[in-house]
Amino acid sequence: MADYRAPLADLDFALRTSGGLDGLHALPAFAEVDADLVDQIVEEAGRMAAEVWAPLNRRADQEGVHLKNGVVRTAEGFKDAYRAYVDSGFNTLPFEAQWGGQGLPWTLALALMEVWHSANTSLALNPLLTIGSVELLQAHGTAKQQATYLPKLISGAWTGTMNLSEPQAGSDLGQIACKAERAHDGSYRITGQKIYITWGEHDLTENIVHMVLARLPDAPAGTKGLSLFVVPKFLPDADGNPGQRNDLRCTGVEHKMGIHACPTCTMSYGDDGGATGWLVGEENGGLSAMFTMMNNARLAVGIQGIGLAERAYQDARAYAFERTQSRDIHGGRQSVPIVRHPNIRRKLLTMRALTEGSRALALYAGNALDRAKQADDADTRSRLQTRVDILVPVVKAWCTDRGVEVTSTAVQVLGGMGFIEEGGVAQHYRDARIAPIYEGTNGIQALDLMGRKVLRDQGNGMQALLADLRADLGGLDRSDDADLTAIRRSVARGLDQLEAATATLISLSQDDIAKSAAVADPFLELTGTVVAGALLAQQAGVAAQQMAAADGPSEQYRAKLAVARFYADNLLPRADAAAAQVRQGAASTLALDERLL
Amino acid sequence: MADYRAPLADLDFALRTSGGLDGLHALPAFAEVDADLVDQIVEEAGRMAAEVWAPLNRRADQEGVHLKNGVVRTAEGFKDAYRAYVDSGFNTLPFEAQWGGQGLPWTLALALMEVWHSANTSLALNPLLTIGSVELLQAHGTAKQQATYLPKLISGAWTGTMNLSEPQAGSDLGQIACKAERAHDGSYRITGQKIYITWGEHDLTENIVHMVLARLPDAPAGTKGLSLFVVPKFLPDADGNPGQRNDLRCTGVEHKMGIHACPTCTMSYGDDGGATGWLVGEENGGLSAMFTMMNNARLAVGIQGIGLAERAYQDARAYAFERTQSRDIHGGRQSVPIVRHPNIRRKLLTMRALTEGSRALALYAGNALDRAKQADDADTRSRLQTRVDILVPVVKAWCTDRGVEVTSTAVQVLGGMGFIEEGGVAQHYRDARIAPIYEGTNGIQALDLMGRKVLRDQGNGMQALLADLRADLGGLDRSDDADLTAIRRSVARGLDQLEAATATLISLSQDDIAKSAAVADPFLELTGTVVAGALLAQQAGVAAQQMAAADGPSEQYRAKLAVARFYADNLLPRADAAAAQVRQGAASTLALDERLL
Repeated sequence: MADYRAPLADLDFALRTSGGLDGLHALPAFAEVDADLVDQIVEEAGRMAAEVWAPLNRRADQEGVHLKNGVVRTAEGFKDAYRAYVDSGFNTLPFEAQWGGQGLPWTLALALMEVWHSANTSLALNPLLTIGSVELLQAHGTAKQQATYLPKLISGAWTGTMNLSEPQAGSDLGQIACKAERAHDGSYRITGQKIYITWGEHDLTENIVHMVLARLPDAPAGTKGLSLFVVPKFLPDADGNPGQRNDLRCTGVEHKMGIHACPTCTMSYGDDGGATGWLVGEENGGLSAMFTMMNNARLAVGIQGIGLAERAYQDARAYAFERTQSRDIHGGRQSVPIVRHPNIRRKLLTMRALTEGSRALALYAGNALDRAKQADDADTRSRLQTRVDILVPVVKAWCTDRGVEVTSTAVQVLGGMGFIEEGGVAQHYRDARIAPIYEGTNGIQALDLMGRKVLRDQGNGMQALLADLRADLGGLDRSDDADLTAIRRSVARGLDQLEAATATLISLSQDDIAKSAAVADPFLELTGTVVAGALLAQQAGVAAQQMAAADGPSEQYRAKLAVARFYADNLLPRADAAAAQVRQGAASTLALDERLL
Repeated sequence: MADYRAPLADLDFALRTSGGLDGLHALPAFAEVDADLVDQIVEEAGRMAAEVWAPLNRRADQEGVHLKNGVVRTAEGFKDAYRAYVDSGFNTLPFEAQWGGQGLPWTLALALMEVWHSANTSLALNPLLTIGSVELLQAHGTAKQQATYLPKLISGAWTGTMNLSEPQAGSDLGQIACKAERAHDGSYRITGQKIYITWGEHDLTENIVHMVLARLPDAPAGTKGLSLFVVPKFLPDADGNPGQRNDLRCTGVEHKMGIHACPTCTMSYGDDGGATGWLVGEENGGLSAMFTMMNNARLAVGIQGIGLAERAYQDARAYAFERTQSRDIHGGRQSVPIVRHPNIRRKLLTMRALTEGSRALALYAGNALDRAKQADDADTRSRLQTRVDILVPVVKAWCTDRGVEVTSTAVQVLGGMGFIEEGGVAQHYRDARIAPIYEGTNGIQALDLMGRKVLRDQGNGMQALLADLRADLGGLDRSDDADLTAIRRSVARGLDQLEAATATLISLSQDDIAKSAAVADPFLELTGTVVAGALLAQQAGVAAQQMAAADGPSEQYRAKLAVARFYADNLLPRADAAAAQVRQGAASTLALDERLL
């Protein structure tokens, strides 16, 4: 297993291109966010991730978490590693200055999240959930709630959790049964069980703030009867410090295939009469409140896929240069490093192109998110929010599916050593498998993309995205470079396929919504494949320009061009398969009697 | 986790169609192998697999193996389960009567292997390796070696192992360093270390027979200097019973991602002066001897992929009918079983179509193998052997890749419960990941298909396969059934793509062998996708005929037709992506400077 090194060069390049950092810098809110500042932050995060977080990753996987009498002990070194992260202010990055945040772009925050996930995804999940809590309280908390919790959560002194799932309520939140009863003092008493609560209990911080969906006695059935509560482990005292222990506890931790060092908790609320919680937002308005944080949390889970893909790529690349087996295919007497074998090279390039494509996609979404948040007028904000809304399910699902694929390819490059835990990449493969499942399964993402993001506005938002990507592609037209020409042609074809598939999806839905749902998965696959390809094409265009101007490190630009060409020739063809399924796959998906399945 | 039930109906149908069991029955050697006998054997194996082997699977995964002072203790129940299998004669199935075998077709033996792998793949690996030892000794052993070992190995009283890998010699057997020195009594003294020895040490049987590749002092370097030795754990005494303990021991077991209950051993030979072994075949003829058993072992590993895919499909299907979440997409007030959601249906049909396609492919290869073995004249034998040679790497690689894919899809269907070990499918996913790696990585299979199987005869064998598949497809022409027409059209297109890709592969190799190697992986992917599709099409044709004749269970035939149509519409499009890579993907795979990867 290779030592992790943050991919500073591509992070920087992707931030400047797909992440549009220069454009963000031009906005008043980000006037101080210049290239130097960004470089410095990325570099420092990369250093800490590599030196502090990454070395703990494998041992923590072996150690797991220990639960005893409701107390969770985390893996050795996690406390110090979390502390170092908090002390350097990394937790505060994208939040408002009012509560101690640094007000930096989400685009940058997402780039850094990749680094933490590469280094130690079990630990990186902790801040991921805190971010969700911060967003909920920022958007929906009372002034008092904000003053009480936001400084603690933003600094990282306390951590936050999301309590949605119950045994009977996974994808279907309408079945949530946890109860909340009004108390006389304006607070609520929460009772019930929650499952799969990531970092629901731990020993990293003095307090944990649970955001809990529950149901009032007189609430309507289904999702319209859910209310959101903030339920701290220790009730803040008059000075805002952890006071009385709340009536909630961790009653179990799951034995999982991966992310062993992340405590996935069963939480029991109100065994002794009711946990004290306070309403966040409106009664029965819990689900719509929850949606406000889902965008960022889903982008963050997409990033988990990218982080693990990058880590797995680095391990596979290092192994391919070290391991000698068999002679060069052109002959010779000596065994050569396996990187010399063309089909190992294919695997490495596939891994790299998918990882860089995923990164481009996530940062492109981050850019839209930042611009939407900063937009002056409602029209611009709405247009950009539509863009974010389309991209979120694609980043979440496509990047996490690629995380599974790329870590699997790394296992294959390492061969026997890939299957042995000692080799290290087995852990990445196991860890990556959760990301397509939680924070809305990738199937849920596909239905979200189909229903709320494409059908609801009859594909207008998708058309706008296609138009922008086509416009960016225009720059490649003027080149006589053979690579750029080939890339442009492949991507243009992909964009046409996506446009046609969008029309097909709408038309299927008009016939029978089940038909469009039957091809929602390949439609998302198509979208991710094509948009990532278009963004890599645009990056290739920039790389070519900068090479022509001899501006900066031409080796990096040459590699970027080669990776984009590889993507166009070898990965964009997947769009053919996905487009064909959208076009012709619905009827045969629905035809067979259910009982004959 | 659902109880496993052997898929008797599809095994039977696939044996009769793709496995061509009626045709085999017409051969003199298999005159007694009629449908009744086959049904009886498959049913009995299915019963034992479900009742005896499957219930041990999960507990054994948790228990793993225990190594202490060179002694390996296997999981609770394994001894009895293995004993039951041996006592029912299942180990003797395809072997020659002369040594206690039943002389049944390999096609049938492969169908049964699937059942054992579905039930308990860690345990099923044990007989898999024994089969390899039997084949080596049958083909290359002396009369005395055969008399000593074959009855014990065929009955299952003793088990066999394959000792190839060493730390520096994985895919590259030329680097094997284990030594063999000639002793005065005609035996040899073996010294050195072997790794990744599946079932290298265990407590199931009184003796273990190691087949070991080693190098004589005066042997040439590389693969031409390898000799094969039989090295038993206990030297057989004058009565053929286990006598003196040999100088070999298990010094370690690997900690692996999956197949936890299978001891993967580091073996040390000759720590006390040299293990006693006897030459099998010619000195320095070890590698070519080894090739004689690779065909069957590779088919068997392909079967492992199918077995795990089938098991995962059953678990996912059961869960999809039990688990209720969300309303029907057409509305309604109640949550419905998730099988009702179109994109879960897509996942189940994908799993089923890939599993049935893999099964068809493996049994089609088995049929060619049986006919090759039974052929009267050299021309027929050679023609059929060519067919086997082409299909072996495809079965090994394509079916094991599908095993990983299908088990991963099962994890996704189960959602959170898929990632939790308690849910059961996490184990299938972990277990399946080894199969693309061992017995020649899937990358090695792709190079084998490219080099020895296509380029060497300039694609003639592939052309013959295409011609046969096209001829079988012809029957669908006469139908006016819309499904059959659509299936025929899709498969015909796939066969054309495979033909074109074969020509491209040859042409690339004439330009630069590295170029063809750069697209060997997608070429194999294309071959598997298309051939499996063609075989499912042929099965659909038979199903339609039998439905028309109202012959037998029409529900099964309706389902078969629907699954084949699903494959044609939703899975054959993958051939487009693979074909495009073969056509255009080589240059960009090779372009980038190695040091910039």
